[in-house]
Amino acid sequence: MKILIIGAAGMVGRKLTSALIASGSLAGKDIERIELVDAFEPEAVTADGIEIARKVVDIADPSVAPDLISRRPDVIFHLAAIVSGEAELDFDKGYAINLDGTRYLYDAIRAEGQKADYCPRFVFTSSIAVFGAPFPDKIGDEFFQTPRTSYGTQKAIGELLLSDYSRRGILDGVGIRLPTICIRPGKPNKAASGFFSNILREPLIGQEAVLPVDETARHWHASPRAAVGFLLHAAEMDTASLGTRRNLNMPGLSATVGEQIEALRRVAGDKAVALIRKEPDAMITEMVEGWAKDFDASRAMSLGFKAESSFDEIIRIHIDDELGGELPK
Amino acid sequence: MKILIIGAAGMVGRKLTSALIASGSLAGKDIERIELVDAFEPEAVTADGIEIARKVVDIADPSVAPDLISRRPDVIFHLAAIVSGEAELDFDKGYAINLDGTRYLYDAIRAEGQKADYCPRFVFTSSIAVFGAPFPDKIGDEFFQTPRTSYGTQKAIGELLLSDYSRRGILDGVGIRLPTICIRPGKPNKAASGFFSNILREPLIGQEAVLPVDETARHWHASPRAAVGFLLHAAEMDTASLGTRRNLNMPGLSATVGEQIEALRRVAGDKAVALIRKEPDAMITEMVEGWAKDFDASRAMSLGFKAESSFDEIIRIHIDDELGGELPK
Repeated sequence: MKILIIGAAGMVGRKLTSALIASGSLAGKDIERIELVDAFEPEAVTADGIEIARKVVDIADPSVAPDLISRRPDVIFHLAAIVSGEAELDFDKGYAINLDGTRYLYDAIRAEGQKADYCPRFVFTSSIAVFGAPFPDKIGDEFFQTPRTSYGTQKAIGELLLSDYSRRGILDGVGIRLPTICIRPGKPNKAASGFFSNILREPLIGQEAVLPVDETARHWHASPRAAVGFLLHAAEMDTASLGTRRNLNMPGLSATVGEQIEALRRVAGDKAVALIRKEPDAMITEMVEGWAKDFDASRAMSLGFKAESSFDEIIRIHIDDELGGELPK
Repeated sequence: MKILIIGAAGMVGRKLTSALIASGSLAGKDIERIELVDAFEPEAVTADGIEIARKVVDIADPSVAPDLISRRPDVIFHLAAIVSGEAELDFDKGYAINLDGTRYLYDAIRAEGQKADYCPRFVFTSSIAVFGAPFPDKIGDEFFQTPRTSYGTQKAIGELLLSDYSRRGILDGVGIRLPTICIRPGKPNKAASGFFSNILREPLIGQEAVLPVDETARHWHASPRAAVGFLLHAAEMDTASLGTRRNLNMPGLSATVGEQIEALRRVAGDKAVALIRKEPDAMITEMVEGWAKDFDASRAMSLGFKAESSFDEIIRIHIDDELGGELPK
């Protein structure tokens, strides 16, 4: 079993790599090799009995995909993307990486398959940004894709190509639309969605965090651990059950900011909640209003994808995975 | 008012050209120039006071779009495509023309707009092939796009790009998903959907036609005249009402083959109906089973798009437009 992870240096890529090394196998087969590639140097990792290769690549360069695919990985995780904000600011870069880069990968697989039988499992991380407001209260599995960002457009196109190339037997694709990942480990960042994590992560370690929206704001979440679970399940599942509909809304937890805060209170007490400073920001409030709030992810759940069912659980996962299992004294 | 028609040599392109010449104006402005381009030589036409240019082009050639757009047409009708069957058989050609060719046009408009203000109306003919079975009985305006052909995939991608480029102010796009055009004038062709026209067109002129499916088979139709009406309305409408959702299911008529035949009987008598020879074809029957049968096209209708409401009307339009207003004696 040879695995290629594109976008391996990101938070989810690193956690996925660790999970694969810890397991040593995928889909019941021993892992022989993992190739980690990204536009930034992937972290050095070691693993007994698994060859690890690391490479800095630009997937918008048409010569890169044929090289990566020439080693015929059995499973490809494609996590690399120019994020929403940057794809909006830099039109050319967003289309070059998110659309052309993805298509080069698909076409390199097709070319490799024309040399000798080859049809790898291709796990494509898409996004709920393929949807655009106005939404129903709960977005169902058959709601249409009307992205309101270039990023969402590029992801929706990646999904369509994934389905068509799968239907034609070129690759065996599963597209997964991830919820917002919460609690993101690390430092606060400038992403407009960052506060959903900040207001939990920082108070848990005794630091202040800013809440720019009202407590009634509702959003769609899953933990980093759930995200890695989605990726592994997408790599291992029987795709016969997908038919030609290869792209799935992942399950998640719909919660208001107020519900997040009450979960924080139950897990870490009033002292932690007191560290949340309300600083309403009209621009962020308006952006969050336009984001998807809730999904009926029945199809993915019936196919075995699992997410958290309470914010208490999401917070405890963060404490387990990032804080060594207990809150700092 | 300068107009560019890409795919001008096809049946709809020719009828659109005639309608534009007959009117002499579009969106309240006099037409000065019409440029007709296609992979095949567009028919020579003449028009008082309108300059007509004709050109054979390959839109998959990246140098073509910048040249066409350099003349800064105010309205662009993009009708050109490799059809479903051919795009399925020739993967590279389908993607080259239907996806890359369309994207070259959008990008040429963007490049032209970077030289000096330019944001043309772009009418993109899409298709109900962006949908794939299983369907609800009536496909609504918010049903998701899961094409089951490469052609449908390429059209769905053209739609997504049209929306994103419109949202960014690069062009002013309207995507229209045409029903099956019935009655197609001309000779019977080998398209699997051809019989829907054949079983009316041939008996109307005293010739035999083959019906390969059961009379209960249901499908979604509009006349060539309605299709030209959709194109003109898409070119003239106020796109402010579209918001970011630029792609529309066109209205049409949902009818069974049995209903088509009864309309033929009312218009042309039992003698015409007797010319339909039933030769069930399992492969065509199965293909037709997988096609969309009915739509709720409320949104397009509320925006002023109009189609026929009976097959009697569709047959009479054919008699008016193709047979000089009366049935051959």
